[in-house]
Formats: sequence, C-alpha cells, structure tokens
Amino acid sequence: MRKLQRSYIREILDAINERTISFAGGLPNENLFPIQDIKKATNRVLENPLSLQYSKSQGVLSLREKIAKIYCEKFDFPTNKDEILITTGSQQAFDIIAKTFLKEELYVQSPTYIGALSAYKVLNLDIKSFDELKELESKLNPQNGFYMMSDFTNPTGRVLSNERREEVASLLNKTDTFLIEDGAYSLIDFEGTIRKPVAALYENSFHLGSFSKIVAPGFRVGWIRAKKELIDQIIVSKEAIDLHTSTFNQMILDEYMNEFDVFEHIKKVRKEYGSKMNFMAECFEKYIPSFKFKRPNGGMFIYGSFEEDSFTLAKKALENDIAFVPAQVFFHDNRKSTEARFNFTNSTFEQIERGVKKLSELLNK
Amino acid sequence: MRKLQRSYIREILDAINERTISFAGGLPNENLFPIQDIKKATNRVLENPLSLQYSKSQGVLSLREKIAKIYCEKFDFPTNKDEILITTGSQQAFDIIAKTFLKEELYVQSPTYIGALSAYKVLNLDIKSFDELKELESKLNPQNGFYMMSDFTNPTGRVLSNERREEVASLLNKTDTFLIEDGAYSLIDFEGTIRKPVAALYENSFHLGSFSKIVAPGFRVGWIRAKKELIDQIIVSKEAIDLHTSTFNQMILDEYMNEFDVFEHIKKVRKEYGSKMNFMAECFEKYIPSFKFKRPNGGMFIYGSFEEDSFTLAKKALENDIAFVPAQVFFHDNRKSTEARFNFTNSTFEQIERGVKKLSELLNK
Repeated sequence: MRKLQRSYIREILDAINERTISFAGGLPNENLFPIQDIKKATNRVLENPLSLQYSKSQGVLSLREKIAKIYCEKFDFPTNKDEILITTGSQQAFDIIAKTFLKEELYVQSPTYIGALSAYKVLNLDIKSFDELKELESKLNPQNGFYMMSDFTNPTGRVLSNERREEVASLLNKTDTFLIEDGAYSLIDFEGTIRKPVAALYENSFHLGSFSKIVAPGFRVGWIRAKKELIDQIIVSKEAIDLHTSTFNQMILDEYMNEFDVFEHIKKVRKEYGSKMNFMAECFEKYIPSFKFKRPNGGMFIYGSFEEDSFTLAKKALENDIAFVPAQVFFHDNRKSTEARFNFTNSTFEQIERGVKKLSELLNK
Repeated sequence: MRKLQRSYIREILDAINERTISFAGGLPNENLFPIQDIKKATNRVLENPLSLQYSKSQGVLSLREKIAKIYCEKFDFPTNKDEILITTGSQQAFDIIAKTFLKEELYVQSPTYIGALSAYKVLNLDIKSFDELKELESKLNPQNGFYMMSDFTNPTGRVLSNERREEVASLLNKTDTFLIEDGAYSLIDFEGTIRKPVAALYENSFHLGSFSKIVAPGFRVGWIRAKKELIDQIIVSKEAIDLHTSTFNQMILDEYMNEFDVFEHIKKVRKEYGSKMNFMAECFEKYIPSFKFKRPNGGMFIYGSFEEDSFTLAKKALENDIAFVPAQVFFHDNRKSTEARFNFTNSTFEQIERGVKKLSELLNK
C-alpha cells in the first residue's frame, strides 16, 4: 500500500471557509468565464444525442483540429490533428505520459508545479532537480525525462528567454531524453505575446495545454501535443484510465470555438489578470515592503521571498483566515524556504488589499 | 517502455464505418438519453459560474449524498456521503483502486470485462483466473485483490445467486483480500429487480457504479462506494490523476436528479432493452439455431457459443460489415474460444434482424 500525503494545497483548499481570503489556489476567476457563450454552445451541442455518447479515446476530431491550428498559427509550431490527444485536464497528461514512457527517473525545475509532482510521485518515479542546466548533460538519457514550464512557470512566474530555450533544446537533442513541457499559462501573457515552445525545437517532446486557464477548469479538458508515433502509444494508457475525456465537454468547447473567438475572450482575461497583478504588487510594496518579488508578465501568481520561514507564516496566516502557499511544497525534496506563492486571479481588488494588509499586521506581531 | 496492445474492442470500433452493423460496442442507445431533461438541468446549472470552476477531489457533495441514498434505499446497503468518491467514469475506479491498494496480483472472473483488464494490465498487475471458487481460499490474501461483477456480468450476462454471493463473502472474510465489485449493469434488470451487492457483506470492499448505462456515458461520471478509511486513501490517487471529475458534469447529473426521477427514466431504458434482447434472441433462434445462448435478464449483451472459433468468425464478419466481439479478448490469458458477445442496445430492430441474418449467410458459406 502506497503511503501518500494529500497535497498540501488541497488541504489548504479544504481548510478554507467563508471568512478566508484565499491567495492559495490556482483558481481562475469564475466571473470571467464566458458563461453566456458556453450556454449557447451547450444548447447547440445538446441537439445531437451523440454528444452524450461514448467517443474515441484520442478525442473529438474537430476539437483536435482546432487545437492543431492554434499550434500552427499562434505557437509557430507546425502540428496536425493526429499529433493531438485530448486529456481529462492537463493533470491526466502527467500520469499517462509518465506511465507510458518513463521508467524510474524524472528531472524537474525546482521549485515546480505541485500537481505534477503528485502525479509523478503516485507512479513512484524518482524525482530529481538540478542547479545548473549543464549538470543535466550527464544525467538525462533516453530512459528518463525532463518536466518543465517555459512560460510563467508555476510557482515562480518566470519565462524562459529564447536563448535559454535553445540551450535546453540543444541539451535535449544531445541526451535524447523525453521532454514534458507544460504550457498551462502560455496563453496568459498580459501583453498577449505567445512564445515558441521548447517542444518545437525537439522531436521527442510532449507539449501540454489546457482549457482550464483560458476558458474554464470545470470541464476538465486539456491536451497533449506530440509526434504521432508517441501519441499512438499514449492512447493505450489514456484508454485504460478513463476510455476517453467527456464527449459532451469536448463538443461544447469545440462548438464554443466555432461560434466565438476564444482569443477575444483570452484578451479580456489577460487584461483583467494584469490589473489584478499590478494591484497586488502595489499592495505588497505598500504594506509589506520586506516581501521581495518581481512583477510577472503573465500567469496567475506573484512569487517572492519573506524574511522568515514561509511555511510557519502560512500556517499562522491560515489560522487568521488568509491562505497562501509556502514554497516548501513546490520543492520535490520539501526543503525549507522563505519563498511563497500568491494567486491574484480569484480575489477581488478589495480582498487583495484587505488580505495583504492583514498579513502585514501578522508579520508585525 | 511498456508494450501494450490497444484493446481489440476499441480497434473494432475504429474499424466501423457507415455500412457496419455493430453489435460490438457496449454503447447504450443514444435515442433513449433524457436529452430534454438534461438540457433543462444544464441551463439551471449554468446560472452558477462555479459549475465551471475547480472543485473538490472527492466530488460534488449533493451528488455524493444522492448516490449514498440509492445504496440505502435501492441496494439495501447503508451508505453515507463520506463513503462515496466520484470518478471519471467507472474506468478510472479500476486504475485508482489498483494503484492505491494492490501490489502485484489480481484475481478475476473469466471471461471478464476487457476495460478492467486493460486498466489492470497498464499497472503491470499479474492477472489470474480460477475454475472453482474454493480454489481461491488458498490464493487470496490481504495483499491481492478480487475483481468481479455480480449483476449481468460483462460479457456473460450472468447474475450471481444470493447463495453464491454469501459464499463469495464468506471466502473474502476468510482471506481478507480487497474486493472490487463492478455494478455497471446492476440497475438494468429488465424486470427492475435490484440485488444486494457482495460488497454489502464484506467490509474491505469497493463497489463501483456509473451513470454511463443509466443516464449517459458522455459525461464520464461514475463512483466508488467504500468505507471512509479506504476512500480517504484513494482520494490521493484520484487527485494525482485528474484533480477531480468535471464539476459541470457532476452538477448537471445532480440537478437532473433534483428535478427528475432517474428511476422513472431507468424504467423506460430497461423495458426497451428487454424488448431488444428478446428480439435479438428470436433472430438467433430463427437464423442461427446452432448459436447456443441463454436469454439474459438484464444488461446489454447476449453471450453464446458458435460451433467454430469466434475470433476467425468475427474477423470475417467485420470484413462483411458486421461487428461483434469474440470471447477471446475477455479472457485474461487470451485463450481461443467459440463464444462471442453481441450488444443489442445500440441497434434498431431492423439492424438486429439484418445483421443476424447476414451473419447466418456467412456461416453457411
């Protein structure tokens, strides 16, 4: 029997009550969901009873075509429908890729996305990090893998420069390892810039995407972009795990993109998130000047460093109805840290100010 | 890298074209989906943007309460909401239970459900069958598991007698093994009889259910019923695999059951399926009297035996645009068989007659 800890983030989420101001989750703002447009699309989809029937494991064809088109037109990454597999959220992609291709070992950025760490740990993978990229040259090989985010990395919010992307690609080409590149936030640059993924520079790669941050997470629809030969192998694991992703939800998203311009919607989202980020940054500067951070250019989080252990602080804050995530949980080795992650997308401006102010009071106690 | 075969059934499904008469899939009849009622429920649900937000890993509370109530009132199996975990289809239940609790070995009925076999095989479990129940007494133990269906077993359509259920429970109580009891068809008895599961007689058990056969499979919503201590451990694996099952789909099913009587709907489904079964049985008796079978009392399949190898016959049939599943794929050891499974729920009466007749012509060639 595997002994596993529930993720600390989910525990925080469970501990949250009505009084809590939560900067902890990675929740997009539900008030921005294009709910009227989704309603129209849904009613259209429900004219066809096959929308509620079983469907193919690889995913709904026209949705795969639309995603392929986004790669071609937005990511400068030639892709066709056979190179897309629809997954039940990006989260599922971690599981089925690792299960299919990885034997024992996976290298990750540190700190990194906790949900990915959980998925890999459940599979008993040996998770390792590194300090300098060049270390990896002797460590990566065709049996292991490298998991990374290039755009607005969760939790740090960092973006890999083009130069750095080429360095990574060159390293991968030398070592022939599997690359899992997570693009969950790639379309949420506040200015609308979309960058070419590392996966476009390296053949043995999986690029992951999701509708969770750009439309809504409640559908649980994400995808994997990989060459056909790799996709064909993952389908077996996908099928074994849930047969296929909800036909209904796939068809709704497909119809939504038929009738509406999802990039117009994303524009609204990224502008709102940009304002929220700037406002939270101003609050930190005003109320907690000792918190050191850089304003991110996209994504959903401000990441920075306190002058004290952030895990202890987070516990104290939670008791006082403020939730945020101490960086310790983002390190695969659970190391102590003064760093912390704050989500700015799921709170109102008023909550952001009240929360940061209250946290400053706790710090001064 | 794991070498896995795609399931033969999915391959058949992929090979099907517009001309094919398919008795192969396990597809419920989409013309019976309560689509107007689902539409009403969906529009209600979409009044709340939280229907498209992330939600808790264990599932939507009021849906869990409703499922617990079905166990109490219909299955004579006392259950509360903490004993229910919502899964992304029943298929996911196989994966997360096995991953959490099983080390190496699983015993199954033979023949058994191919989707379950795939899920267990992906996890590299050693799958074993048995001839007589009493053999299992020396083989089952607290480290391994036993997977079974008690009601309208896929593919055979058999129902375990009450006496047999008690024998199995007594065996399980002696060996303290994990029981995975799959109740996918338990509510589809043509007469409406609902039987007490073996899981109600044995504590260390998981009972699996699904909305796929009683409402619609396109939602990918199923559940696990187990004691709280076991559920709490599975949540970790569930969370690692897809965070949670679609909030939207869970809320639609919950709202549908708020506003409509799902058992009234099921009544319609089982009556229609009963007629289809009887009609298919008559066609076999008329056109292929050499095909030996017993009429099932529920479920979605007629299972019987030809006078020749059914795998070869199924291939020939597929070339002639008739699809059914040879039993070989339902045996974990892939043994040759003259038996075969025919689905009667997803074809019209006319297709059933035309298909069976055409198959009789092939047999006589």
